[in-house]
Amino acid sequence: MEGVYNFKVGMTCSGCSGAVNRILSKAEGVKSFDISLETQKVSVVAPDLTQDQVFEIVKKAGKPVEVL
Amino acid sequence: MEGVYNFKVGMTCSGCSGAVNRILSKAEGVKSFDISLETQKVSVVAPDLTQDQVFEIVKKAGKPVEVL
Repeated sequence: MEGVYNFKVGMTCSGCSGAVNRILSKAEGVKSFDISLETQKVSVVAPDLTQDQVFEIVKKAGKPVEVL
Repeated sequence: MEGVYNFKVGMTCSGCSGAVNRILSKAEGVKSFDISLETQKVSVVAPDLTQDQVFEIVKKAGKPVEVL
């Protein structure tokens, strides 16, 4: 689906996933997102952003991130 | 001490403190820093930055931060 980007993000506790949540909540251009601590997956819906732009937003949390 | 800023940062696991570590390691103007997961304290040595600037850097991690 266009504008949907998936990442694997190293999150080890609810504080980790909460940090990613706070960053994505405040990010411009992010329409919605889903974070799973269990599967370490973060899915971001951002129709007006590129994958690189969303990658940089997610990376701000300081967690290891890879594109899926 | 001038250029030394102390914060209380909500970190609940080593993934949390590691995220703060990564962000401070990459931040320009940060000379050195100390992170304690146990006491939830982060001390940053940044002689050329203001407290506000360092606060914004630490906040990037998406954790709750307060100035000490």
